Amino acid sequence: MFALAAQVTGAVAAPEQPDVMAFVADSMLLMISGMVVVFMAAGFCMLETGLVRAKNAATISLKNITLFSIAAITYYLVGYRLMYDGVDGGLIGTFGVWSPDPLDEPSGSLASSADWFFQMAFVATAASIVSGTLAERIKLGPFLIFIVFLTALIYPITGAWKWGEGWLHVMGFEDFAGSTLVHSVGGWAALMGALILGPRYGKYGPDGRIQKPMPGSNLPLAALGTFILWFGWFGFNGGSQLAAGTIEDVSAVGRILANTNTAAAAGVLGAFVTAYFIFKKPDLTLVLNGAIGGLVAITAGPLAPELWQSMIIGAIGGVLVVVSVPLLDKLKIDDVVGAIPAHLVCGIWGTLVAGLTTQADGVGIIGQLGIQATGILAIGAFTALLSLAGWLALKYTIGLRPSVDEEIAGLDKSELGMEAYPDFYTG
Amino acid sequence: MFALAAQVTGAVAAPEQPDVMAFVADSMLLMISGMVVVFMAAGFCMLETGLVRAKNAATISLKNITLFSIAAITYYLVGYRLMYDGVDGGLIGTFGVWSPDPLDEPSGSLASSADWFFQMAFVATAASIVSGTLAERIKLGPFLIFIVFLTALIYPITGAWKWGEGWLHVMGFEDFAGSTLVHSVGGWAALMGALILGPRYGKYGPDGRIQKPMPGSNLPLAALGTFILWFGWFGFNGGSQLAAGTIEDVSAVGRILANTNTAAAAGVLGAFVTAYFIFKKPDLTLVLNGAIGGLVAITAGPLAPELWQSMIIGAIGGVLVVVSVPLLDKLKIDDVVGAIPAHLVCGIWGTLVAGLTTQADGVGIIGQLGIQATGILAIGAFTALLSLAGWLALKYTIGLRPSVDEEIAGLDKSELGMEAYPDFYTG
Amino acid sequence: MFALAAQVTGAVAAPEQPDVMAFVADSMLLMISGMVVVFMAAGFCMLETGLVRAKNAATISLKNITLFSIAAITYYLVGYRLMYDGVDGGLIGTFGVWSPDPLDEPSGSLASSADWFFQMAFVATAASIVSGTLAERIKLGPFLIFIVFLTALIYPITGAWKWGEGWLHVMGFEDFAGSTLVHSVGGWAALMGALILGPRYGKYGPDGRIQKPMPGSNLPLAALGTFILWFGWFGFNGGSQLAAGTIEDVSAVGRILANTNTAAAAGVLGAFVTAYFIFKKPDLTLVLNGAIGGLVAITAGPLAPELWQSMIIGAIGGVLVVVSVPLLDKLKIDDVVGAIPAHLVCGIWGTLVAGLTTQADGVGIIGQLGIQATGILAIGAFTALLSLAGWLALKYTIGLRPSVDEEIAGLDKSELGMEAYPDFYTG
Repeated sequence: MFALAAQVTGAVAAPEQPDVMAFVADSMLLMISGMVVVFMAAGFCMLETGLVRAKNAATISLKNITLFSIAAITYYLVGYRLMYDGVDGGLIGTFGVWSPDPLDEPSGSLASSADWFFQMAFVATAASIVSGTLAERIKLGPFLIFIVFLTALIYPITGAWKWGEGWLHVMGFEDFAGSTLVHSVGGWAALMGALILGPRYGKYGPDGRIQKPMPGSNLPLAALGTFILWFGWFGFNGGSQLAAGTIEDVSAVGRILANTNTAAAAGVLGAFVTAYFIFKKPDLTLVLNGAIGGLVAITAGPLAPELWQSMIIGAIGGVLVVVSVPLLDKLKIDDVVGAIPAHLVCGIWGTLVAGLTTQADGVGIIGQLGIQATGILAIGAFTALLSLAGWLALKYTIGLRPSVDEEIAGLDKSELGMEAYPDFYTG
Repeated sequence: MFALAAQVTGAVAAPEQPDVMAFVADSMLLMISGMVVVFMAAGFCMLETGLVRAKNAATISLKNITLFSIAAITYYLVGYRLMYDGVDGGLIGTFGVWSPDPLDEPSGSLASSADWFFQMAFVATAASIVSGTLAERIKLGPFLIFIVFLTALIYPITGAWKWGEGWLHVMGFEDFAGSTLVHSVGGWAALMGALILGPRYGKYGPDGRIQKPMPGSNLPLAALGTFILWFGWFGFNGGSQLAAGTIEDVSAVGRILANTNTAAAAGVLGAFVTAYFIFKKPDLTLVLNGAIGGLVAITAGPLAPELWQSMIIGAIGGVLVVVSVPLLDKLKIDDVVGAIPAHLVCGIWGTLVAGLTTQADGVGIIGQLGIQATGILAIGAFTALLSLAGWLALKYTIGLRPSVDEEIAGLDKSELGMEAYPDFYTG
Repeated sequence: MFALAAQVTGAVAAPEQPDVMAFVADSMLLMISGMVVVFMAAGFCMLETGLVRAKNAATISLKNITLFSIAAITYYLVGYRLMYDGVDGGLIGTFGVWSPDPLDEPSGSLASSADWFFQMAFVATAASIVSGTLAERIKLGPFLIFIVFLTALIYPITGAWKWGEGWLHVMGFEDFAGSTLVHSVGGWAALMGALILGPRYGKYGPDGRIQKPMPGSNLPLAALGTFILWFGWFGFNGGSQLAAGTIEDVSAVGRILANTNTAAAAGVLGAFVTAYFIFKKPDLTLVLNGAIGGLVAITAGPLAPELWQSMIIGAIGGVLVVVSVPLLDKLKIDDVVGAIPAHLVCGIWGTLVAGLTTQADGVGIIGQLGIQATGILAIGAFTALLSLAGWLALKYTIGLRPSVDEEIAGLDKSELGMEAYPDFYTG
């Protein structure tokens, strides 16, 4: 409407003068979204704390708040500019500390600090995935060193390839809010860690089958964590529109929220039904991971689908979670919280299916699927290789695992010297 | 201000061109509000999980995430159009799947998907109420089938009568954010279920008095759930203004938030003092439900009251919760979490009192109270009858209750085959 | 942009006509911020519930929801006008109930009810601090009476001195979002309470050293509480910009969020490293309080610092928490949750350092530090003296402490007659 007024009067905004309303709306979208994405750290913490045994619950809480803090600092010191500054079709940006625009010289179409805040919140998500998979059997020190490596280098570099407008962006790779850039990256790093680290002591018997089930100690907290993640995902996907100051942009955000919620709900139902058919009973842990699987699956392309498509994309995500969990166990890959099925498997699924709902200009569906596969493979290979190198370097220097006695006693005792639930009789 | 510029220049906005700023502000109000209303699902889950015994905690968590997912899907497939599409003073809308506006043809004054997202979030609230009342003694299958029935048919039809601009709307019925349309509807469905299902085994002795108190197993989680609901209610009531793009609208939202918070606080204090006088000690569970009672009470009319009125409305809500709980026990109606007092009793109270603070044009206070009573009775009777039919149909087909042995062992064992707190010694 | 259109056309907005877009944006900032600050009550409740022993967990939950409710009501009845109405360089405002602007006569640059809602949410924060320090050994009645005194009188009066534009404001005192006005005020009241109340029975032996450590019973809930507070703090500090409707204002909010997050993260890492060096192991409780210490430290001046400065400010906050805890124990001041280190010590630190990053016009760094010290001392002395008087009056009238037997049995039994975790074997 005021654009109309300007038109009528013949007034032309000077190019350096941004549209105030759009600047405000876009900045507020990123700030509100960033806040709830930061809050996802609470979701991961509760999910993982609920899914480990009581004797490791304090350690996993400590890891979650510390890894978020490391991610926030490394992204300021290194990550943001490495990911966004002058990538220009290439492989990486520049090395250096990020600074917000001075308050008296705002540039661009939104507050630079709002953008940093929003992007920063994403880094910790990738890191949280790793902590869940490797829980209950990794020492605190090497884990946190790996998190520095992941958040300062691996994530920003693969991020640069797409969101920093690097080579995958030029090629036409679609990954709206990061099924691959965030969730698969975390998943690959977790998978490599699980391979190098090995399973928890006693999990698999000599016959290779599960010898001792190790169920989560506080499932209501795991449910809470899932709900918090669901809530945070509205910021994750909705904020990734990066703009809300026009009718088109704000309508796009609304559509993204509707699709995101529908995929999550379908993921729940998909996992519920699949678990019921396979195990004859629904399984709370799988259903919670079904929600996450649905959310991860829609993340690569939450804008384009019709709602019925989101429903299918999410439902298949939920199914994939349920069928992947026993597969990992068959491979003796011990993923404590089920993060690899939810984030890596569904991340790949979501990125592929985004090629069906969105194509770059002049690229058909088959072509786009090829580009999607290229992105998945390139980012997967790079992340897996660097993660592998990182885990191996840590294993053969300071070591990754506590002693078997320490692991049996629980990491809360050996790593922190405290208990998560000291007033309760636990076993 | 830009309206002013348009005026001065004589520019007239084409009628089909919506006001960009208002479109953005209204859409953002609904999206942010919708997000926090979705998050209320976490609140209900924690409240109910905290108030059941440990042996049923995983099942109630599963029910909460699944019922939310069912509500999200049914509202897309059936509910939204049944509630809003062409009701036009009548009884129901149309049957059919809902679709968002195409991104290139937005219509109306806000993003259609933002509206759907916001309205969808309300449906699960009604369903959550049922799960709390009937906890610990209903099988998962029939419960979820009832939820489909409630969310696909009952809620959208009664919703159509008022919010879909059906016959109650035409009559002048006031229910701003749903004391009746959401909370009483859930409450009636829960009450009918409790009557058909009967109390938990052992709750009432042969003399009809409480034989075995069954206190909630994790009161801190119940407190957390209450705080989450309080937070979510700001979206519930504030978002129901449906617009924030003018000085009047945004001021109305502010006023609604202030009234909502004041009623909740007064509900806490009302329940605290009443419990203290009746039982000589304050009771945490009753105080938590007092907050909810205050919130439900203000929901039918959160805009019109002065703050002192909100304080009284909320405080009476808190009192009603405390006096209703023993009354239900006298009637041997076993309401596990106290949802009937908080949602049904306070829903009726709030809807009646809204007739004192708001009247339709040309209708006096007495007339408005009559209209309010008509709405309460019509929606209550319809919901109670259909719910009764649903519960009876389920009871005499697949059956509602697990065996007594299963109930004593806890539903987590029989329904899920898992424990909520496996590392802890519980009894 | 529409300002530009108005300029070009020569249209001048009538002075009484507020800018609609700025009015909407400013009001929405305060409403959204207020919502998440209200939600901080959940954070305090979980943090404190997690850090007390299981036998006091229901009581501390009850205290937290009740103190919030008291604060909301007193601030409506007395506090807001005492703090803001006509202070005009002086000591206090006026006594009387607050009313929102009528909907048809909005005045000022944002919705008056949005402002009240936002300011109201701050009061409970100060009160929550007291409940944490004094947990496990104070009767419910006198505690709540003190909360009335604190929220109706002490907090609004010291608040008037700065935010009500009283004498400290005139002098040039800087306290953007309340390191002193909120956190130190709560901290001083808690410290005086701890001195009058004495330590928990058995905490310190006859030799003055810790005889029996009393660790928190549910550390995952404490972690959750910290994450909720972190989330809420974005509203606390970001909302304190009070405006978001211009490029400058919304950029300032973005900058505040980035600084706030960075200080919190640095507080975590500062506490982690310090605890590791002192105790050879990281300590989850100290790390959680490190996050809060970093947040409190940045609160007095979250806009001016560069990010590297925020990092240092927050990290020192984290260090201060860790070194203050043993110091309090040496003085036999029993602070159950570590609120005095996090809120009082870091509140003083943050207020002082804000004098380095921001100076009033014509006042050099040294001068500003003097003003900051004046504010800290004046507010500290006033709060400490009034709190001392309040605690002593309560001690010598209705008494503060339960009997030793009651304290040993836990307050949940004596004060509420219920258990927080009745299904669990606790000791």
